[in-house]
Amino acid sequence: MDNIPMDSEELMEESLDKIYEWLDEKKYFQARDELLKFNSVDIAEMLEEICEEKDIDMTIILFRLLHKDISVEVFAELSSDTQVNIINAITDKELDYIVSELDFDDKIDVLEELPANIVSQILENTPKNERKLINTFLNYPDTCAGSLMTPDYISLNKNWTVQRALEHIKEEGMDAETVYTCYVKDSGRKLIGIVSLSTLVISDNDTKIKDIMVTDYVFENVYDDQEDVSEDFKKYGFLAMPVVDNEHRLVGIITVDDILDVMEEEATEDIERMNGVIDWENSDKGYLDMSVWQHAINRLPWLLILMIAYIFTGMIITSFEGRLSQIICLVAYMPMLMGTGGNTGSQAATLIIRGLATNEVDTSDVLKVLWKEFRIGILVGSVLSVVNFGRVCLLDGNSPAIALTVCTAMLLIVVFAKILGSMVPLIVKKMNLDPALIANPAISSVSDMVALTIYFAMASVFLHL
Amino acid sequence: MDNIPMDSEELMEESLDKIYEWLDEKKYFQARDELLKFNSVDIAEMLEEICEEKDIDMTIILFRLLHKDISVEVFAELSSDTQVNIINAITDKELDYIVSELDFDDKIDVLEELPANIVSQILENTPKNERKLINTFLNYPDTCAGSLMTPDYISLNKNWTVQRALEHIKEEGMDAETVYTCYVKDSGRKLIGIVSLSTLVISDNDTKIKDIMVTDYVFENVYDDQEDVSEDFKKYGFLAMPVVDNEHRLVGIITVDDILDVMEEEATEDIERMNGVIDWENSDKGYLDMSVWQHAINRLPWLLILMIAYIFTGMIITSFEGRLSQIICLVAYMPMLMGTGGNTGSQAATLIIRGLATNEVDTSDVLKVLWKEFRIGILVGSVLSVVNFGRVCLLDGNSPAIALTVCTAMLLIVVFAKILGSMVPLIVKKMNLDPALIANPAISSVSDMVALTIYFAMASVFLHL
Repeated sequence: MDNIPMDSEELMEESLDKIYEWLDEKKYFQARDELLKFNSVDIAEMLEEICEEKDIDMTIILFRLLHKDISVEVFAELSSDTQVNIINAITDKELDYIVSELDFDDKIDVLEELPANIVSQILENTPKNERKLINTFLNYPDTCAGSLMTPDYISLNKNWTVQRALEHIKEEGMDAETVYTCYVKDSGRKLIGIVSLSTLVISDNDTKIKDIMVTDYVFENVYDDQEDVSEDFKKYGFLAMPVVDNEHRLVGIITVDDILDVMEEEATEDIERMNGVIDWENSDKGYLDMSVWQHAINRLPWLLILMIAYIFTGMIITSFEGRLSQIICLVAYMPMLMGTGGNTGSQAATLIIRGLATNEVDTSDVLKVLWKEFRIGILVGSVLSVVNFGRVCLLDGNSPAIALTVCTAMLLIVVFAKILGSMVPLIVKKMNLDPALIANPAISSVSDMVALTIYFAMASVFLHL
Repeated sequence: MDNIPMDSEELMEESLDKIYEWLDEKKYFQARDELLKFNSVDIAEMLEEICEEKDIDMTIILFRLLHKDISVEVFAELSSDTQVNIINAITDKELDYIVSELDFDDKIDVLEELPANIVSQILENTPKNERKLINTFLNYPDTCAGSLMTPDYISLNKNWTVQRALEHIKEEGMDAETVYTCYVKDSGRKLIGIVSLSTLVISDNDTKIKDIMVTDYVFENVYDDQEDVSEDFKKYGFLAMPVVDNEHRLVGIITVDDILDVMEEEATEDIERMNGVIDWENSDKGYLDMSVWQHAINRLPWLLILMIAYIFTGMIITSFEGRLSQIICLVAYMPMLMGTGGNTGSQAATLIIRGLATNEVDTSDVLKVLWKEFRIGILVGSVLSVVNFGRVCLLDGNSPAIALTVCTAMLLIVVFAKILGSMVPLIVKKMNLDPALIANPAISSVSDMVALTIYFAMASVFLHL
């Protein structure tokens, strides 16, 4: 089956092996030709691999040997570290060419990640009017619609015919990702309608744009949060959406391919927050690119806040110390009761936080959630209690009174933790904060305190301490 | 600023208030007309709201009053519960119309969620050849490329001119989402190239398709995992991708709007797994739609597995019981040391699991990660130790020897937990399993055991127990 294309991953690995050999023999042109069999995304990935396996100098040589037009596309896909290395190694003329040929949104992406001195070096060589536009775009907050958009879109006049519009598109010859929806503005640059390329293609040539344009389109404001923008993309399934300013003037468009990255970023942020990691810098930097200091600063706050919680846990234990030393075997069950409370609370919190993020759960559902988690708590708690009764009596050989203490505490702790874990995110959301901010560690430590209190209370009841 | 469209959320709420009033006065047609001001996605959302606020009967009345063509689009967007209610309430003729007019991929989506008896009722009324195709599509495993694709795509002949191709597209008049990439097949239905609509529009009318088609396109196999498919969409930024069978015959295409849902599902799955919830049924059901039993079954396994771990924690404590009762105040610091170990381990595990999912970290980076987490552990552990030295001596008024025990244990536990939390996901990944499956609760309980062992060892050293 020789005419069946291989999976691109396998192909890339085969080619990389060949390239490494050629690089060792300094056969750079052969290595370059092997690279050119791939598309720009794959070439960028392979250059990064080569940089890791060999060194940055070889990568730069290969990059400079690429054809001019493809080098621009490859450049846009490289990591910012490699971009900086390349910028430092190439001539100003080469840099000028790359920067001038980059799509506007790629240019913004590249500039956002580069160090300030290199950004100003690049901006110096940019025409004045474009420099102004770039600066405007760079100034939108990192997480708003403005930072995602591109000004490269097709504008049509509402009085044009379909034929005129198609000729206009042919002249502009845009990138595929931005051409599929065209925008109709009035004389004041206000957006009045949108037309999809597919509508143009299937309409008669003499139809007027104003008769086929959609006027109840969905749009975003330039300062809308990127999370809301991605919600709208998910809800409506659009390929692109217009972004307007407060006067409803069209300033740019957002295409769905950028939303895929936003969704990944937002999921990462939620996951990190839920597990007690705060990304203060809101950076796109990967795990390995962040310094040890930055990692420590992102992780310490919750650990320090929880220290305060542990002071209370300590106080609860200290107040029971005297009685605890009488039946010291009770200590052996503390980790289990606290741990189970924490885990079961995190489970509930996780499901509610995620349900809120995906709009499956709403703050108005609080009673439904409460009733559901109460019953789940009874069910799960009962199973765990029965299992533990066996363990405490048979395996550990302790008295039934101790087993009763442990198992009643277990049931109550599980029910309490389920309710705590499910209610806290709903309350936080009701206060218009991100529910993921109340990390699972926080839920665990509150449930720790309550777990100990319940445990000692049960011990007082059943063991008459 | 009367000509500025309002945000659709606000508009919807205003309209819903009006609709509720009309429904109370039984003015159904006025309510219907108010609904028709919106697009089908919004109408579906409003119908769901009405169903919650009023009742399902009113919702069904409103749905049946919608115009035929829009009712199909609205139906596709409704929740499966509402769909079932509507199917049970409408006539066979109405149902036939809706089912026959649904886009193929929407039809598959609807059928996948409906109860089996209703599916067979619908399939009875479907033409035989379409029924066969539907059954094939319904049989693809839930998480593979085949379950995401639609057979509605445009095929072109490589010998056609651009003009002929555009006329063909005009005749077919497809949905926007599937028309933007056209596919070229040979006589054996094998895929030989793709052409984007934008290329067609900007090319000269007499150009041959074979001269502009792209032959090094990226494709998916029908059994590829949906996670890999969404990786490719993210990597290449495509709007659609072809899906082929093992003989490289084109069987369908996947469009990017379906990938947005996949990404959300995959993120939810990862988040749930990391927090010890296993979705056995792999269901798309929301939190509220799942039964108490199902919730309990998803949450119990990890809680029960951890019970075994707690037997060991219990044994460690029991073996130290005699010495512990001599210095009972050591018990007060146990929750803090175990808790901090668990939290700091989860932080590391979270970052590595997420890094692996987004391809920022690779299993070959194991030494880099180890060295990084070791240093982070030393830094974070030192800060926490210093803070605790103050607490144990000054706040609790315990002896410096006890403070030394607690703080040395703290430092060692944090370093150990960081290494444990970062290495386990890499090892699990190396074994070709999903790193998220080793949930954070598991990491916490292993770190609990080690924390206690370290703590008691330090107590033996510094307090001569």
